[in-house]
Amino acid sequence: MKFELLDRDSGTRARRGRLHLAHGSVEAPVFMPVGTYATVKGMTPDQLRSLAVEILLCNSYHLLLRPGHETVARMGGLDRFMGWDRPILTDSGGYQVVSLCALRGIDDDGVRFRSHLDGSSYFLGPETAIDIQMALGSDIMMVLDDCLSYPATQMQTRESMRRSLAWASRCHAHFQKSAPAGQELFAIVQGGVDRDLRNESAEQLMNLGFPGYAIGGLGVGEPAPVMYEVIERVEALLPPERPRYLMGVGTPADLVECVALGVDMFDCVMPTRHARNGWLFTSGGHIVIKHARYKDDPNPIEEGCGCVVCRTYSRAYLRHLFMANEILSSVLNTIHNLYFYRDIMRRIRQSIEFHRYGELMAEVRSRRASAVLSDTE
Amino acid sequence: MKFELLDRDSGTRARRGRLHLAHGSVEAPVFMPVGTYATVKGMTPDQLRSLAVEILLCNSYHLLLRPGHETVARMGGLDRFMGWDRPILTDSGGYQVVSLCALRGIDDDGVRFRSHLDGSSYFLGPETAIDIQMALGSDIMMVLDDCLSYPATQMQTRESMRRSLAWASRCHAHFQKSAPAGQELFAIVQGGVDRDLRNESAEQLMNLGFPGYAIGGLGVGEPAPVMYEVIERVEALLPPERPRYLMGVGTPADLVECVALGVDMFDCVMPTRHARNGWLFTSGGHIVIKHARYKDDPNPIEEGCGCVVCRTYSRAYLRHLFMANEILSSVLNTIHNLYFYRDIMRRIRQSIEFHRYGELMAEVRSRRASAVLSDTE
Repeated sequence: MKFELLDRDSGTRARRGRLHLAHGSVEAPVFMPVGTYATVKGMTPDQLRSLAVEILLCNSYHLLLRPGHETVARMGGLDRFMGWDRPILTDSGGYQVVSLCALRGIDDDGVRFRSHLDGSSYFLGPETAIDIQMALGSDIMMVLDDCLSYPATQMQTRESMRRSLAWASRCHAHFQKSAPAGQELFAIVQGGVDRDLRNESAEQLMNLGFPGYAIGGLGVGEPAPVMYEVIERVEALLPPERPRYLMGVGTPADLVECVALGVDMFDCVMPTRHARNGWLFTSGGHIVIKHARYKDDPNPIEEGCGCVVCRTYSRAYLRHLFMANEILSSVLNTIHNLYFYRDIMRRIRQSIEFHRYGELMAEVRSRRASAVLSDTE
Repeated sequence: MKFELLDRDSGTRARRGRLHLAHGSVEAPVFMPVGTYATVKGMTPDQLRSLAVEILLCNSYHLLLRPGHETVARMGGLDRFMGWDRPILTDSGGYQVVSLCALRGIDDDGVRFRSHLDGSSYFLGPETAIDIQMALGSDIMMVLDDCLSYPATQMQTRESMRRSLAWASRCHAHFQKSAPAGQELFAIVQGGVDRDLRNESAEQLMNLGFPGYAIGGLGVGEPAPVMYEVIERVEALLPPERPRYLMGVGTPADLVECVALGVDMFDCVMPTRHARNGWLFTSGGHIVIKHARYKDDPNPIEEGCGCVVCRTYSRAYLRHLFMANEILSSVLNTIHNLYFYRDIMRRIRQSIEFHRYGELMAEVRSRRASAVLSDTE
């Protein structure tokens, strides 16, 4: 894998990059829509391509349960299985095991857990996490990490970070031994909100040497300023010639702020999940499409938005589809929200190229402040 | 409205026609997908256009309840509301009132009923049925008819047919008075399975004079041979220069058989509803995609099918989407089933043009016979 660092903003740490992966190149900073079960809910691959999506995230945990990674492998890997010929990143399943499975036992070997679907037993260790992701055939795999809940004591955080380090080392060794063609393995820096533990995690992972580094364990309930501070400190440690990926984040405002701190990659369910719940992003805040005020509203979701939904449909129609529980409601809302995220990322990349990232930040911050004041939803 | 009768098959009553409507022309025989709530469930207008769909059916009853026909009118009519610039046919709501509403009172004035959604009261009479459809702005409206359940006594059938006639006459008068631009009103022949009552219905409606004639009250539980016999008799009475529309029918085999009897237009929820239930049409029968046998099946739904789903995805993927209850399951299954119906209609039209309709019928009948024998679903 090659990561080109194309440009840097002059006033912030924002970087303009390009990832070259087995299934194509990706312009960074990039937002990755989430395709949990080998589908971004409601979207055909054609629709994703028309939204200029360049890379997706799929969840190993979910695919392990349904349809099973062996089935995906037999069908030729995720790309052929889901008809998506562009890059895919898979997570390791570590986060879902903690957040979705009530029954689990964890030790240094890995996690024994029961499926949240039918209670059947599974084991996920560092080597199996790599094997599963090799079967899925993603361009970027993630190491298995031990995901801590927030808040945690210093002792819990240290233990969890060190276990994550040990697993990362075993993932790295297993990956090197198998040396799958066209797949890369990214590390995940852990250590909660503790400066020393984050330092230790980052340094040890850099000693192993990875083509990319994620920052994990954020966006789990800590205040935004705390998250930003951790990113700022970790970023300073990471090698500038490698991409940095902030996992599971975030809101449009988070994206703008975290790019300024040097983050290159993001993923989040927010645009797609919110869409299905009828929560639609606009630059002036959000609208909740089910509200009665939109019953006879002939306007698009956002005046001036270039997405096919805003160019074609009224809020009245979108509200109607939502109230009638129509499939097309999820489809159209998802198209709009993904377009909104894509448009933010496009503006982010452009602002970096023009070395005017500070202006974009100021604009987004001030619009956000006035949106919070005027938001009556 | 102009109906061009382009050609006739030499061996059967099959006709090749073309309807010229306000929103465009339609090649007949035609199958109209059902877009109940101003959306063909799961399909964007772009997807429908790529399936060469030329005309949709929308349900007045459902749109009256949600979002209300006044809302649709305020948004500029169904075409602008749902982003569909091609022709639309609306039914009158008479059938849904009978089939969906438990509480209703019917007399010569019309039907008083309660919404199946929230129990609120509505009234539907011949004039209101026209007013609703004028508000919706469909290219083709249908008269309000009294829909009989099957089986019915001769007395019930006569009373129902005569009420339908009286309503058709009032619909016709109200329509003439309003004379909406770009909208046409079709009649509906009723009379159950009674030859004399069907005769009376057809003759009285022809005396009023309509640009098109539907055959209603079929496909409601009567045996297929009975249905075919009624169509054959009614067809002989109807003016050949007007299109004939068989409402709510049917299976692919029904389409082939009924075209041979002179039918020009069809609608049915079967391809779309079956798709959402994972029932997929193939020329050798159907497949039920949830079956375990498809778990690792790398083949498309049907080898040789030209639809984008069969060109892209395995049965294994489609089964996975269905089992995971993914939105994309409904979307892809619907694309395939609508393509299957579109392909049958394309072959039907071609066979008429080649005056070889009998050959198509023989092929479909023999394939159907062997499919029934081999079908182990």
